[in-house]
Amino acid sequence: MTTKAYGAHAADKPLQAIDIERRAPGSQDVQIDIAYCGVCHSDLHTVRSEWSGTLYPCVPGHEIVGHVSAVGSDVTGFKVGDTVGIGCMVGSCQHCASCEEGLEQYCENGMVGTYNGRTKDAPGHTLGGYSQRIVVDRKFVLKIHHPEDQLAAVAPLLCAGITTYSPLRRWNVGPGKKVGVVGIGGLGHMGVKLAHAMGAHVVAFTTSENKRQAALDLGADEVVVSRNAAEMKAHASSFDLILNTVAASHSLDAYTALLKRDGTLVLVGVPEHPHPTPNIGNLIFKRRAIAGSMIGGIAETQEMLDFCAEKGIVSDIEMIPVQKINDAYERMLKGDVKYRFVIDSSTLAG
Amino acid sequence: MTTKAYGAHAADKPLQAIDIERRAPGSQDVQIDIAYCGVCHSDLHTVRSEWSGTLYPCVPGHEIVGHVSAVGSDVTGFKVGDTVGIGCMVGSCQHCASCEEGLEQYCENGMVGTYNGRTKDAPGHTLGGYSQRIVVDRKFVLKIHHPEDQLAAVAPLLCAGITTYSPLRRWNVGPGKKVGVVGIGGLGHMGVKLAHAMGAHVVAFTTSENKRQAALDLGADEVVVSRNAAEMKAHASSFDLILNTVAASHSLDAYTALLKRDGTLVLVGVPEHPHPTPNIGNLIFKRRAIAGSMIGGIAETQEMLDFCAEKGIVSDIEMIPVQKINDAYERMLKGDVKYRFVIDSSTLAG
Repeated sequence: MTTKAYGAHAADKPLQAIDIERRAPGSQDVQIDIAYCGVCHSDLHTVRSEWSGTLYPCVPGHEIVGHVSAVGSDVTGFKVGDTVGIGCMVGSCQHCASCEEGLEQYCENGMVGTYNGRTKDAPGHTLGGYSQRIVVDRKFVLKIHHPEDQLAAVAPLLCAGITTYSPLRRWNVGPGKKVGVVGIGGLGHMGVKLAHAMGAHVVAFTTSENKRQAALDLGADEVVVSRNAAEMKAHASSFDLILNTVAASHSLDAYTALLKRDGTLVLVGVPEHPHPTPNIGNLIFKRRAIAGSMIGGIAETQEMLDFCAEKGIVSDIEMIPVQKINDAYERMLKGDVKYRFVIDSSTLAG
Repeated sequence: MTTKAYGAHAADKPLQAIDIERRAPGSQDVQIDIAYCGVCHSDLHTVRSEWSGTLYPCVPGHEIVGHVSAVGSDVTGFKVGDTVGIGCMVGSCQHCASCEEGLEQYCENGMVGTYNGRTKDAPGHTLGGYSQRIVVDRKFVLKIHHPEDQLAAVAPLLCAGITTYSPLRRWNVGPGKKVGVVGIGGLGHMGVKLAHAMGAHVVAFTTSENKRQAALDLGADEVVVSRNAAEMKAHASSFDLILNTVAASHSLDAYTALLKRDGTLVLVGVPEHPHPTPNIGNLIFKRRAIAGSMIGGIAETQEMLDFCAEKGIVSDIEMIPVQKINDAYERMLKGDVKYRFVIDSSTLAG
């Protein structure tokens, strides 16, 4: 099936309209007509081959929502017309210890990314959600129960949502816990909303005074401007968990010092240039930890979507036609988006 | 009470015989005639003011074993003649959250170190175990159930033992778990013995081929020479926990890469010069963590001593007269000790 898409032919080329082929649905497959696709920083890094290893043509996009337009003969649980989502993965080995625990993102044989992953389909690597249609193994298809008019704003839950939800759950965020969220962007704004909805006391950390009101509006109980040493110090040794969504190189010590005994600083972004080396005394003297976390498993992603539907949580988005994607990347680099661009996939037809 | 001791009058002076004063036992105090005192790297760092803030005269020593020679009027649970130990702490606030949880080492008002801590006693700071006698609040006195002829080798359990026991317990080491111990010195040799006794599969990491047999003799199931890349790679992503006792600056990445998903690298030593900054991708892609841990609480120290008495575990030591302490420090710096020096405190009288 020829499908209209937007992608790049090389690291130094802008994205442009291209035609791609999608396989006919196999017996276990779900075919989805894409309605919206969120725009993640990973898209930009991959298109520009900033993490090396990008295969071209590259069609990014792993915050996909849409409607089922066909199902394979053995598919149960999904039918034509269902509202569904696809996140960062479209495959995994299904038999390693991680897959068996429902943690496909840590598949010991390598999970298959929604784009730039290995596949037998043409052209030999997966092509993502900046396209009209996608065909995915039913095991990686998520059900969406939000109202249809919220669908565009649901899209970013598939990456930004689960990337923040999973560590909040893993480190037992809930009532009585004090949680920090560092960086109020695509990921961080979801972290604030989710931690608030889980019942925690949420403190948003931002570098700029002028984001204070916006962070409060998202659900933060307090906002700390991280450049203000006195404000930071007032929170010393008080956090159960700090979720750090900032991938730009920065000192982690300012945050480890704010953790309680046994508290954890969780990083969800790989820095392009390394962070300064962390102060180990900060860890030892209060048994603190620095940990990492990557997206979430399929079952947990469904749990997150259901939680968000129940709580009425969506992302704050700015909708764009696909033809504006190159401009959107430039604005994203400047932090000029509140808080996530989402492509209106109907514009691919135009 | 005038008490013979060994201490230093300045950072650049050797240790020498000095007389110190011990308080008469208060109603809650236990007076201990010291039989043996282990020699910890912290003693050397403090005597030489390498961590800054050392108060002089400095009498180090926090691996103390001996016999009760007097008890205060309100002391229950200890009587004259009992075999007891004192570790790294002689006081804490007793009312903060950490103290109430039995984690006095993380006292939020600052635990009182066995030496160089604050005290009302002369000379205004605590003086440690390189002395004939010590007077300590009963809450910080441990019972020792090992046979008397093992007493010297019990001394290092009070710091080296609990420093390794506590993280092994905290991170649930036991049968079915694969545990690494990095650095086979004073702390590491206890880590190997304890992890083995807890039923784990223990891998010792050492920089030198010629320590291989010694590590196996301590109870390691396998030994990996960390400079051998192929040997290291064979253990990729396989450890539940790696206990890193090496404080000298080194790359942590070689060890984080050996952790399973959700595994933890625990550091127990503050490096004088920082470690190279760790690879954050290593953490994120398998939800691994780098954590710190410091000694253990009083209740856990008692638990460790009881565990060791039951399992017949003591340290491997080299006994020295106190007059050899300055030489012992020089040998310790060269790693020339298997695995802990212990002072025969009877030599203080000579």
